[in-house]
Amino acid sequence: MSDEQQRRQSLEQTLTKARVLIEALPYIRAYKGKKVVIKYGGSAMTDDSLRNSFAEDVSLLSLVGIKVAVVHGGGPQITRAMGQAGVEPQWVDGLRVTDAETMRVVQITLAGEINPDIVRLLGGHGASALGVTGIDGNLFIARAKHPRLGFVGEIAEVNAQIVSDLMDDGLVPVVAPVARGEDGAVYNLNADTAAGALAAALGTEKLVYLTDVEGLYRDLGDEDSLISQIGAAALRKLVDSGSISAGMLPKLRSCMAALEGGVQQAHILDGRVQHALLLEIFTPEGIGTMINTA
Amino acid sequence: MSDEQQRRQSLEQTLTKARVLIEALPYIRAYKGKKVVIKYGGSAMTDDSLRNSFAEDVSLLSLVGIKVAVVHGGGPQITRAMGQAGVEPQWVDGLRVTDAETMRVVQITLAGEINPDIVRLLGGHGASALGVTGIDGNLFIARAKHPRLGFVGEIAEVNAQIVSDLMDDGLVPVVAPVARGEDGAVYNLNADTAAGALAAALGTEKLVYLTDVEGLYRDLGDEDSLISQIGAAALRKLVDSGSISAGMLPKLRSCMAALEGGVQQAHILDGRVQHALLLEIFTPEGIGTMINTA
Amino acid sequence: MSDEQQRRQSLEQTLTKARVLIEALPYIRAYKGKKVVIKYGGSAMTDDSLRNSFAEDVSLLSLVGIKVAVVHGGGPQITRAMGQAGVEPQWVDGLRVTDAETMRVVQITLAGEINPDIVRLLGGHGASALGVTGIDGNLFIARAKHPRLGFVGEIAEVNAQIVSDLMDDGLVPVVAPVARGEDGAVYNLNADTAAGALAAALGTEKLVYLTDVEGLYRDLGDEDSLISQIGAAALRKLVDSGSISAGMLPKLRSCMAALEGGVQQAHILDGRVQHALLLEIFTPEGIGTMINTA
Amino acid sequence: MSDEQQRRQSLEQTLTKARVLIEALPYIRAYKGKKVVIKYGGSAMTDDSLRNSFAEDVSLLSLVGIKVAVVHGGGPQITRAMGQAGVEPQWVDGLRVTDAETMRVVQITLAGEINPDIVRLLGGHGASALGVTGIDGNLFIARAKHPRLGFVGEIAEVNAQIVSDLMDDGLVPVVAPVARGEDGAVYNLNADTAAGALAAALGTEKLVYLTDVEGLYRDLGDEDSLISQIGAAALRKLVDSGSISAGMLPKLRSCMAALEGGVQQAHILDGRVQHALLLEIFTPEGIGTMINTA
Amino acid sequence: MSDEQQRRQSLEQTLTKARVLIEALPYIRAYKGKKVVIKYGGSAMTDDSLRNSFAEDVSLLSLVGIKVAVVHGGGPQITRAMGQAGVEPQWVDGLRVTDAETMRVVQITLAGEINPDIVRLLGGHGASALGVTGIDGNLFIARAKHPRLGFVGEIAEVNAQIVSDLMDDGLVPVVAPVARGEDGAVYNLNADTAAGALAAALGTEKLVYLTDVEGLYRDLGDEDSLISQIGAAALRKLVDSGSISAGMLPKLRSCMAALEGGVQQAHILDGRVQHALLLEIFTPEGIGTMINTA
Amino acid sequence: MSDEQQRRQSLEQTLTKARVLIEALPYIRAYKGKKVVIKYGGSAMTDDSLRNSFAEDVSLLSLVGIKVAVVHGGGPQITRAMGQAGVEPQWVDGLRVTDAETMRVVQITLAGEINPDIVRLLGGHGASALGVTGIDGNLFIARAKHPRLGFVGEIAEVNAQIVSDLMDDGLVPVVAPVARGEDGAVYNLNADTAAGALAAALGTEKLVYLTDVEGLYRDLGDEDSLISQIGAAALRKLVDSGSISAGMLPKLRSCMAALEGGVQQAHILDGRVQHALLLEIFTPEGIGTMINTA
Repeated sequence: MSDEQQRRQSLEQTLTKARVLIEALPYIRAYKGKKVVIKYGGSAMTDDSLRNSFAEDVSLLSLVGIKVAVVHGGGPQITRAMGQAGVEPQWVDGLRVTDAETMRVVQITLAGEINPDIVRLLGGHGASALGVTGIDGNLFIARAKHPRLGFVGEIAEVNAQIVSDLMDDGLVPVVAPVARGEDGAVYNLNADTAAGALAAALGTEKLVYLTDVEGLYRDLGDEDSLISQIGAAALRKLVDSGSISAGMLPKLRSCMAALEGGVQQAHILDGRVQHALLLEIFTPEGIGTMINTA
Repeated sequence: MSDEQQRRQSLEQTLTKARVLIEALPYIRAYKGKKVVIKYGGSAMTDDSLRNSFAEDVSLLSLVGIKVAVVHGGGPQITRAMGQAGVEPQWVDGLRVTDAETMRVVQITLAGEINPDIVRLLGGHGASALGVTGIDGNLFIARAKHPRLGFVGEIAEVNAQIVSDLMDDGLVPVVAPVARGEDGAVYNLNADTAAGALAAALGTEKLVYLTDVEGLYRDLGDEDSLISQIGAAALRKLVDSGSISAGMLPKLRSCMAALEGGVQQAHILDGRVQHALLLEIFTPEGIGTMINTA
Repeated sequence: MSDEQQRRQSLEQTLTKARVLIEALPYIRAYKGKKVVIKYGGSAMTDDSLRNSFAEDVSLLSLVGIKVAVVHGGGPQITRAMGQAGVEPQWVDGLRVTDAETMRVVQITLAGEINPDIVRLLGGHGASALGVTGIDGNLFIARAKHPRLGFVGEIAEVNAQIVSDLMDDGLVPVVAPVARGEDGAVYNLNADTAAGALAAALGTEKLVYLTDVEGLYRDLGDEDSLISQIGAAALRKLVDSGSISAGMLPKLRSCMAALEGGVQQAHILDGRVQHALLLEIFTPEGIGTMINTA
Repeated sequence: MSDEQQRRQSLEQTLTKARVLIEALPYIRAYKGKKVVIKYGGSAMTDDSLRNSFAEDVSLLSLVGIKVAVVHGGGPQITRAMGQAGVEPQWVDGLRVTDAETMRVVQITLAGEINPDIVRLLGGHGASALGVTGIDGNLFIARAKHPRLGFVGEIAEVNAQIVSDLMDDGLVPVVAPVARGEDGAVYNLNADTAAGALAAALGTEKLVYLTDVEGLYRDLGDEDSLISQIGAAALRKLVDSGSISAGMLPKLRSCMAALEGGVQQAHILDGRVQHALLLEIFTPEGIGTMINTA
Repeated sequence: MSDEQQRRQSLEQTLTKARVLIEALPYIRAYKGKKVVIKYGGSAMTDDSLRNSFAEDVSLLSLVGIKVAVVHGGGPQITRAMGQAGVEPQWVDGLRVTDAETMRVVQITLAGEINPDIVRLLGGHGASALGVTGIDGNLFIARAKHPRLGFVGEIAEVNAQIVSDLMDDGLVPVVAPVARGEDGAVYNLNADTAAGALAAALGTEKLVYLTDVEGLYRDLGDEDSLISQIGAAALRKLVDSGSISAGMLPKLRSCMAALEGGVQQAHILDGRVQHALLLEIFTPEGIGTMINTA
Repeated sequence: MSDEQQRRQSLEQTLTKARVLIEALPYIRAYKGKKVVIKYGGSAMTDDSLRNSFAEDVSLLSLVGIKVAVVHGGGPQITRAMGQAGVEPQWVDGLRVTDAETMRVVQITLAGEINPDIVRLLGGHGASALGVTGIDGNLFIARAKHPRLGFVGEIAEVNAQIVSDLMDDGLVPVVAPVARGEDGAVYNLNADTAAGALAAALGTEKLVYLTDVEGLYRDLGDEDSLISQIGAAALRKLVDSGSISAGMLPKLRSCMAALEGGVQQAHILDGRVQHALLLEIFTPEGIGTMINTA
C-alpha cells in the first residue's frame, strides 16, 4: 500500500469514528439530564472484561449528563462467602431461611465486599461513584416477608431523596440491597425488586436489568421468539400465561410495577454483550427487550 | 408528703431541667455551624448502653446545628472475624502483615458489618447518617506503608469535598478506614490517623478521640497526673520524653498534625463515660484532655 | 465525704445534665424550623428575674432553630406614663377613650420605651432581636374600632412578609402594637389580638400567651378545674357559656381565630413560672393550657 | 389664545417635562445601586411642606435603585418633651448632663415618637421604611463620653450588617441615635456623629447632612463666601483656622472621618430648600457644599 | 435683573425640575419590573432628532427598572435597498410577492443594517441593547402565508424565553422580524404582528406602537375625533364598522390579539412627537390612544 | 452468508460503535465545561456537506457540555455582494480602502446574511445558537487602523461578559466581526483577530481556526513539512524567519497573542476535512497543527 493509500485509509477510519459520534447525538440529546436505574448482576459482574465494559458505559453515560444509579445483587459471592464461613443453608418446609448468622454473611458480603468493589471499579474508570446501603438515610425500610423465612425482607417504604440528591450532584450511587427493618434488625432485599422500587420512587426515565439471557422470549426455549418490544398490558398477559421462567419473574414483576409507578421504559438486556448499556441507549439498533407503557 | 409539697417538688425538678438547658446555651451558640470529627472506638462501640449514649449525643449535636463526621475503627471485630474465617495472622520480622485474604476480611468487616451497624444505630436515634468508605469518591488515596507489610496503607491524598458536602447537607458521614491505593488495590488505614487527616482536610473546629482511658497522664501510672489541658508545644515535648503509652501515640501524633493543619482543638475523651461527647461540648466542666494550639 | 465519693457525686450530677439535654432531643427535632409567636406581658415583663428567664428561653429557642416573634403589650407602663405626663383618662358613656394626647403617650411608651427595652434585654442574652412597630413596612393597617373611642384601632390588614423575612434571617422581631390607620393617623392595637393576627398571617406552629394565671379554668374560682388541653370546638362552647373571665376573653378569641387561620396550637402559659416557655416546648410535662384544632 | 396655540403651549410644557427626566438620566445611571446615608434634621423635619418634599425625594431615590438610610436627631422635640415631663435640665460645671430620667425622655421621644413618625411619613409616600434604633442588632455599641455627663454616649462599635441587609432588601432603614452601652445601659448618641459612623461602616457613596444653613461659608457672616466644593485637606485647614461655627463642627468632623473611612462624597445641604436632596443628586446644578477626598 | 432676582429665578427653575421628577414617581413605581414591547418604526426611526429622543426614552425606562424589548420594521430602507440591488418588485394577481432574491435583500437590510444601527443607537445612549432576529433561538417559527406570496411568513410558533431571559438580565433585546420557516427557509414577518405576538407570549404590561399618526380617530379625516382611550370590545366594533385606515388595521388586530393573550394595555402613539414614550409612561397627561381590556 | 454469520457481523459492527464512543470518554471528560472559540471560514462555510458536518460537530460539543463560541468572516460573500451592489473596490497607495458604502455592504452581508444563516444552520442541527455582532453590548470597541483605510478597525476594547453569559446559559454565540468605533461609526474587524481577542478575553481552553490548508508547514511548499505541534516560542521564530504565507500570518499572530492572554491551546485545522473539529477534540489522532504555550 502506498503512503497515499495509507493516509487515505487512516483518514477513512478516523471519519468513521466521527460518524459514530455524530450518530449518538440525538440519543445524548434525548437522555441528557434524565435518570436511569441499572440493576447490575450476572456475568457483567463476574467476568473481568465485561466488568470493565460496564464501568466504561456507566462513566460515559454519567459524563454526558445522564444520571445513573446502580443497584447490585450478590448471589454467587454470598454462596461462596457462606461456604467460607461454614454457614449451612437452613430450610423450613422446603424454603430457604435467612437466619441471623446467614444475614450477617449476606450483609458483610453485599455492603463490605461487593459494594466497595463496584465503587472502586467505577472510580477507576472516572465515574464519581459512592456506595450506599438501603440502611443509609433510611433509603429502604423493610419488614419480614414471612415469619418463618427470618431476615428476608420486603420493602415497606422507600426514601429516595438521598439517592436523588447524590445523582443531582453528579455522583453515581451504588446501592446494596439490605435495609433496616421496622423492628430495627437488618433485612436482605431482593435486588431486582429493590431496583424497580428505587426507579419508581425516583420516577426515572429508564429501568435496566443486566441479565444473562438475550432478553424475553415469547416461547421459552425458542430462541427465535425473542421479543424486541412489548407493552405493559401484553406483558401482563404473557406473565399470566405461565410461560415465563422463574428467574425472570421478579424482574418482570418489578418492571410492571415500575412502569405503573411512573418509569417510562424498562429493559431486559443481555449483560454478556460488551457495552450492552451503551448500545441500548446510544445507538438506533437497541438490544434486548424493551417494555413500555403502551 | 402533701399534694402541695408534691406539686412543689415536681415543679422544682422541672425547673432544674430548664436550668440545665439554659446552661448549654453559650456552648450551642459557640459551636453552631462548626465541624467536628469524632474517632469512634473502644467500649463506646462495643457496650450497648454506651453505644446508645453515643448515638444520642451525635443526634443532639447534629440537631442543634453542629456538623459531625464519625470515623470508626474495628479492631476487636476484625480479630473475631478473622478467627471465624480461619485466617491466621501473618508475621514478618515481628511485624504483623496484612495479606490479601486478611485485607478481604478487614474490608468486609469494616465496610460491611461495622459501618452499616453504626449508620443503623445513629438512624435509630434520629440522626441522618450515611456510610462512606475511604474508597467512595476517592476520599482517601493510599500507598503501601512498607513493602513487607502488605496492604497496610498510609494516606497519600485526602479528597474531603464529598464528606464536606454531606455535612453541609445535614447528614452525618460515617467513614470506614479503607482506601483505594495508587495501585488500584484496597488498603487498610489506621483509623486514628484517618480521623486526624480528615479533620485537617476539613479544617474542623474539633477533633475528638473516644478512648478507653480517662485522658492523657503526665506520669504513666499516676492517676492523679491526668492532664486537663495542654498546648501543642508542651505535648510534643511530652511525646519526645518517651513517657507516653504506645496505644496513645498514633492519636497524639494525629492530634498534633491536625492542629498544625488548622484544627482548633483536639480532645482525648473517656468513651466509657456516658454522654462523654455531650458533656465535653455542652457543659462548663469538660472532661478528658484538651489539646490546643497554644 | 471521701475524694472518691465527691468525684462520684460530681459525675452523677454531670450525667443528670446530659440526660436532661437528651430528653429535649425529640422536642428540638419536632420544632426545628417552625415558627412561634409569643405574646409577652404581665409579670414576665415586669419582674426582673422572670425577664431574664424569658430572655434566656427565647435565646435558646432561637439558637436551636425555632423561629420566634414577640408581640408585647404595655398596660402598666402606659398607665404610669400617662400619670407622669399628667394626661387624664377620658371616658365616654363608660368607655375609655384614646384621644390624641393619650395616643401620643401610648406610642412613645410602646415604641420608645418598652420595645427597645425588650430588644436590649434579648440582645443581652445573645438573641439577635430587632424592634418593629406595626407601622414598619405597613405590618398592620388599622381602622377606628368605634368613632367615639378615638384612636383605638382594630386590624384591617396584616402584611407579615417583613416579619417573616426577619425570622428567616435568624432575627427575633419584637413587635409594638401600634399601627398606621387607613386615615394616616396612628392607632393603638390590642396586643393579644395583634399576636393572634400575626400568628395567623404567618401560619405559625404555635401561638403562646404569657399570662399571670396558671391557665384556663373550667370553673372560674376552682383551682382544681385547670384545663390541660382543650379542642377549639369545646373552647367555643366554654366561651359561649359565659364562665370565662373578662381578661381572658380577648386571648381566647384570638386563639380561636388563629387556629382557624392555620395555627396548629395555642397556649395559655403561666408567665410567673420561671422558664415557662422552655418547659412547655422542650419537656414532656407541658404546663398551662393547650388549645388545638381537634 | 387660539385652540392651536393652547395645544402648542400644552405640548411645549409636556416636552419640558420630558427633557427634565432625560436630564436626570446620567445621574440615575451613576448612582443606581449605590448607598447614601442622610442625616435628617432641622426645618426639613419640622416644617410640614418640607417634610413631604423630603419624603418624596427619599421615595424617588429608593425607587430608581439608590439605597438610602436615614439617621435622625430630635433636639426640639426632646426639649419640648422634657418640658412636658417636667424634667429639669441638669448642669455640672457648665456642661449639660443626661441623667437617667432625661435619658428616658430622650429614648421615648427618639424611638417612640420621632422615629415612627418618619417611618409613617415615608410609608405614606410609597417608600418601604423600617425603623431601627442603635440598640437593634447591636447596631451601635456606646460608652460614656465622660463620667460626669451621664448617659451621653460615644460610639465604641458599629455593626452595620443589619442596616446593610435591610438596604439590600429595598427597605429604607430609619435610625434613632440611641445605643446600648458596654455596661448594658442606654446611651444617647449625637445624630451627626452616628450618621457619619454609619456611612463609614457601610462604605457609602454619599453622606448628606440636611441642615438649616445654605452650606459652608469660608467667612462666617459673609453670605457670598459660600463654598460650593472643597477637598478634605482644605476643609481640615479651615476647621483648624477656627472660623467654623460651633453647630457645624460635629458635622464637618463626621464628614472628614467618613471620607477617611471610605465614603466618596459628603454634602452639607440646605434642608430649607424644597427637594434639596433630589436637586443635589439628580441635577447638574448641585446645591450646598460638597466635600470630597481630593 | 438684580443678583437676588437672578438667584431666585434660577432656584425657581431648579425647583420646577424637582417637581417634574416627583411627578414621575407614581408612574415609575407602577411600571418598575414590568415588561413593555415597543414596535419601532416610521419617522421615529428615520428622523435623526426623533431617533435620539427614542433612544433616550428607552434608556431611561430601562434604567429605572422597566424591561423593554424593541421590535422594528424596515419598509423604506428595504424599498431603497431593493432599488439599489436592482430587484424588481414582483406582483401576482395584484399582490406583491417576496421571491428568494427579495427575501435576501429583506433579510440583509433588517438583520444587517437596521438592527445593528438601532443597537448602536441605544448603546450610544447608555442602554445595554442586543440585536436578535426571529431566527435566534427559534424565537419565531414561520410558515408561508399563502403559496403564491413566496417568503411572506405568518407566525406559527413563538419561543419567547430567550427574549425574556435577556430582559431579566437588564438587556434591551432589539428584534428583527425575520424567522425560520417550518421548511427551513427564511421568511419575512409583519413587524406589527410580530410585536403583538411577542408581547402576548411575554405577557407584557404594555404594547406600544410608535406610528406616524396622532392616534386612532373615530372618524377618519376628522382630527377632532381622536380617541384617547377605548376598550377592546368597542375597538372591535369600530374595526368591524370599516372606518379604519388600511395601514392601521394590522396594528389594531395585533393589539386586540395581544390583549386577549394577557397584555394589559396597548398604545397607538405619535412617534413624531419628541419623547412620546416617556410622556405616555411617565406623565399623567398621556398621549395618543390607549386600548385596554375593559 | 449464514444467518448466524450475519448476526455476528452486525454485532461486530455495533461493538465497533461502542468502542468509538468509549474512546471519546477521556476527551469529553477533559473538555467538559471548558470554553472553545472557533473561527469559522473557508470551505467549511461554503461547501454544503462541510457546513452540515460543522453544524453537527458544534452541536455535539455543545451537548456534552463544552462551551462553544463561533466567530465568522465573510470574504467571498462580501466580494460577491459588492459586485451585486456595484460598489467598486477603492485603493489608496496600493491599499484597499473601506469607504462608507463598502462598509454598508460589509455590515449587511456579515450581520444580515452570513450571521443569521449560521445561526439557522446550527439551530437546524439542534444547537441553541444566537447571533451577536461586535456592536451588541459593546462586545468590541474599534478604532481606525489607519486614517487612509477608512472603516477598517482595530480592536480597542473587548467586553466579553455578554458572550460569556450566553455560553454559560448553554447557548452558542455566533459573532459577526463588526464593531462600534470610539467615534460612533461602524468598523469592520479582521475575523481572525477578533476570534483571538475574544478567546483571550474569555480565557478559553482552545482557540480553533478552520482554514483551507492542512495546517502549518515548516517549509512553505513542502507538504511533508506539516507541523503537528509547536510551542509559542518556536512559532515566533518561524514567523520571524519570514517563511510563513501572508494569509496565515494574522491567524498565527492572533494565536500567539491569545496564548499570551491565557488561552491554553490554539489549533490550525483543515476545514476541508469532514468533522475536523470533532476529530481534533474527541480522538487521540488529532489533526492539523496545535500550538501551545510550551
